[in-house]
Amino acid sequence: MEPRTVLTLIGFCVPRRAEKSRLGTFFSGSGKETTVPANSMEELVSLCKRRGFIFQGSEIYGGLQGFYDYGPLGVELKNNLKAAWWRTNVYERDDMEGLDASIIMHRQVLRHSGHEATFSDPMVDNRKTKKRYRLDHLVKDQKADVVAKVAEGIGESVENFPAVVAALVANPARASEALIAAGVRDPFSGEVGDWTEPKPFNMMFRTTIGPTADEDSFGYLRPETAQGIFTNFKNVVDSTSRRLPFGIAQIGKAFRNEITPRNFIFRVRELEQMEIEFFCAPGTDEEWHQHWLEARLSWWEAQGVPREKIQILDVPKEDLAHYSKRTYDLMYDYPTLGYEEIEGIANRSDYDLGSHTKAQGELGLVAKVEENLDSIAKLTIPHPETNKPVVPFVIEPSAGVDRAMLAVLSEAFTKETLENGSERIVLKLRPHLAPIKVAVIPLARNREEITTVARRIKADLQKLGLGRVLYEDSGNIGKAYRRHDEVGTPYCVTVDFDTVGKGEDATLTDTVTVRDRDTLAQERVRISELANWMRERLR
Amino acid sequence: MEPRTVLTLIGFCVPRRAEKSRLGTFFSGSGKETTVPANSMEELVSLCKRRGFIFQGSEIYGGLQGFYDYGPLGVELKNNLKAAWWRTNVYERDDMEGLDASIIMHRQVLRHSGHEATFSDPMVDNRKTKKRYRLDHLVKDQKADVVAKVAEGIGESVENFPAVVAALVANPARASEALIAAGVRDPFSGEVGDWTEPKPFNMMFRTTIGPTADEDSFGYLRPETAQGIFTNFKNVVDSTSRRLPFGIAQIGKAFRNEITPRNFIFRVRELEQMEIEFFCAPGTDEEWHQHWLEARLSWWEAQGVPREKIQILDVPKEDLAHYSKRTYDLMYDYPTLGYEEIEGIANRSDYDLGSHTKAQGELGLVAKVEENLDSIAKLTIPHPETNKPVVPFVIEPSAGVDRAMLAVLSEAFTKETLENGSERIVLKLRPHLAPIKVAVIPLARNREEITTVARRIKADLQKLGLGRVLYEDSGNIGKAYRRHDEVGTPYCVTVDFDTVGKGEDATLTDTVTVRDRDTLAQERVRISELANWMRERLR
Repeated sequence: MEPRTVLTLIGFCVPRRAEKSRLGTFFSGSGKETTVPANSMEELVSLCKRRGFIFQGSEIYGGLQGFYDYGPLGVELKNNLKAAWWRTNVYERDDMEGLDASIIMHRQVLRHSGHEATFSDPMVDNRKTKKRYRLDHLVKDQKADVVAKVAEGIGESVENFPAVVAALVANPARASEALIAAGVRDPFSGEVGDWTEPKPFNMMFRTTIGPTADEDSFGYLRPETAQGIFTNFKNVVDSTSRRLPFGIAQIGKAFRNEITPRNFIFRVRELEQMEIEFFCAPGTDEEWHQHWLEARLSWWEAQGVPREKIQILDVPKEDLAHYSKRTYDLMYDYPTLGYEEIEGIANRSDYDLGSHTKAQGELGLVAKVEENLDSIAKLTIPHPETNKPVVPFVIEPSAGVDRAMLAVLSEAFTKETLENGSERIVLKLRPHLAPIKVAVIPLARNREEITTVARRIKADLQKLGLGRVLYEDSGNIGKAYRRHDEVGTPYCVTVDFDTVGKGEDATLTDTVTVRDRDTLAQERVRISELANWMRERLR
Repeated sequence: MEPRTVLTLIGFCVPRRAEKSRLGTFFSGSGKETTVPANSMEELVSLCKRRGFIFQGSEIYGGLQGFYDYGPLGVELKNNLKAAWWRTNVYERDDMEGLDASIIMHRQVLRHSGHEATFSDPMVDNRKTKKRYRLDHLVKDQKADVVAKVAEGIGESVENFPAVVAALVANPARASEALIAAGVRDPFSGEVGDWTEPKPFNMMFRTTIGPTADEDSFGYLRPETAQGIFTNFKNVVDSTSRRLPFGIAQIGKAFRNEITPRNFIFRVRELEQMEIEFFCAPGTDEEWHQHWLEARLSWWEAQGVPREKIQILDVPKEDLAHYSKRTYDLMYDYPTLGYEEIEGIANRSDYDLGSHTKAQGELGLVAKVEENLDSIAKLTIPHPETNKPVVPFVIEPSAGVDRAMLAVLSEAFTKETLENGSERIVLKLRPHLAPIKVAVIPLARNREEITTVARRIKADLQKLGLGRVLYEDSGNIGKAYRRHDEVGTPYCVTVDFDTVGKGEDATLTDTVTVRDRDTLAQERVRISELANWMRERLR
């Protein structure tokens, strides 16, 4: 345990452990510390802004903390990543349906899901500065001796930090005393604070719906896409005639009012998720859990995030929420941040459908659920063997799009020293993820015979449906190559005087130069063969 | 003017006029009444639910008004439609960049855009029932003689309904008297109400950001995607080196706290938009406005929404917002609803960038803007001729995804009587929009020699990247055909005993039956030629 935060750049700090899974747990397991090139995340953030991947939200008004906008290249990378997930998990399987539920949900949905009661972080206020902090972050970021005193004050061992936090939460009055007595300082003022008792802070955004000023007319911005899947379970079964086992997949925005959003797009308040709820007969759940672990690791590999950079954390029993039978957290080794959760794959038993169904008492639920007198639907499906109605078990592979972007960008970001001694930055993205597939560059911007051919080639390549093809005439050829290395464009096609029969070598007429991003090899390709050439390499 | 609502089915009523464009105008122009098959919208809604296109949001808890969830087929249709828009407007042009900005925005963004002050509808309360109504909807839905009395009471001609509403809004005290004196009834109680003065109701959803309970720590859910484009103008220019003219395109969710959401997915509280802001030099704006009108009509045509079903409303000067030079509303003839806005194409002058820029005074703005002392960015770009910094004009083609879905579904929905006298429902969607491109049907679900071939064909066709291919074994062949007609699947491929060499005709080995959705023609195609056969027809 090293309780001091190492600030590597503004806005970046190094969390020490894997944090939370969904409900009520703010800490779980422990992650390994690694050393990465000290400034690579900083360089990545800078590249993202400079080249139009990611901007701070509402930036011209000073920015809004925890919100990011995806620029011209960011939106393409993000769409490509989402499409790759959808292709693998919906199109290429025979046991999956898609869904796109609304973001604002009925209060009852988030009440019966358990979020209203437990989707919270413990916070303390400093009465002197009026600043509010997330308890575990506040303590973790103190000097070692202060943390030790806090642990002592609450009667726990400093070696077990999660237990310290749990004890502080469980004994609010004593916690307040312990923080003050240990001399816990306010990061804002640098002075010892006058700390209140820890209180839970619900992380859901709420908003009033309809014209009434009535306090009860509110809904929540969903904190996860999953609940839209559970509430539509019956609709999907009824409209598709699905039988067990099958899954429902969804990609969409989710919102979490994080107390301290940080680490670029890693911990944000507006995020996007790619979630699957896979429904199976009780008893087959453990097998399916293993299946999904393998399937997801193999998907990450195909996106350029290798297995050796992912630690599989088998979340210890005592850290699991009561309804979870078992959870694997996939921990990716982010530069600067170290190992952090990139995906959770949970065996959630029959808790979710059991919580949202009516007639709970008749269904022989395994999970302990809160009483639900509001639901109007019975969320059962015939058991594949007995044909009797059963509430299926759920395996949930849940990944964050933004965290995935950050991992994919981190893996792709490369600094190379070329043979001539010059340095280049190159994003070695898998071609299917590259924001721009091909840049078509006219060697002379104002020579019509060249630009006409270049525009035609751009239009023809675009029609192949491989993704974005860019007509690139914004600078000289060297700058264009450099720019397209930095944004990960796999191929640049240059149209020159030879192409249009005005060069020195007549045999080069109707050919173009194709430059490979990774090898830097340049090849002369006939225009008539270009479509197939690209299709073979980019499909 | 026919002031009585014709209720055609629960939740559906027939609005009389085109309603509001963006800021502050709740009414503009007038739409033509048309007669359509009385129950076709009702049938469409029923199909959408039955076949898994669209469900009511939070349905198992009684539903949330104005929120809808897109089911397994709805999400595919929606994604295909968005992809078609992106392809045409971003990929196939050389003057467009994409963007994906966050939904929650800084309060200042929506303040300086003008939404905080003017994005509102006038409302009145009934003191007796405590019910609240949108003023224009309330009056419009009264009996003809009551509307006439209201008009008389406020001193306007009943022939000009928008003028009646405007006068009521302008004279709140007199309006309250006029409504009561005319005997305006509360639709809830059926009795004459005790009506308050009309008050503006802002339609933006707001939410508290961060852990403080501070009243000022809130942001808005964007009421349109456009503002994210304006606030990122400088970021996009800096990262892409764009010069005028060029545009920025965005697809994403927007939120409007409609007082009376209605007409299925036509008027909803959570919607999705496809917006372009096209930036051009002042003086070239009128030409670009015409260009975009043509470009958009041609796109709608390619989605199966023909020009003859769209009226172009050249919004009268007096109905335009003060900053708008000219606006075309594309009015589509929806079944049951009649002509309603499907897209607005506005010449917004330099109002938007002029409102969000700093140093407004130095920039020679044409539009009248409110003072902005909060922005930290100068939103100019070199003029293409003089090279001097200029705030460009903006042409804005703005379409709704949900309204587009409804139009596309309405056009595709067809009831046919076949030669044998039987009826079928068929969704004649353009192939590129169809949720499922091909259904591969094993004639016998439990014969392994057949299912193996069928699964292999499914996997091979899926790899072509044409969209979703379904392995369909949920019923008998007749039911499968019927189901796929109803959801618009262009081709069904059936694998039978002949395919696997166990039929009567050996020449049919390694061939499959391909059935065409529209012509019902069945053709025997060699498996080895199937990929090309589909590619030619579905690309």
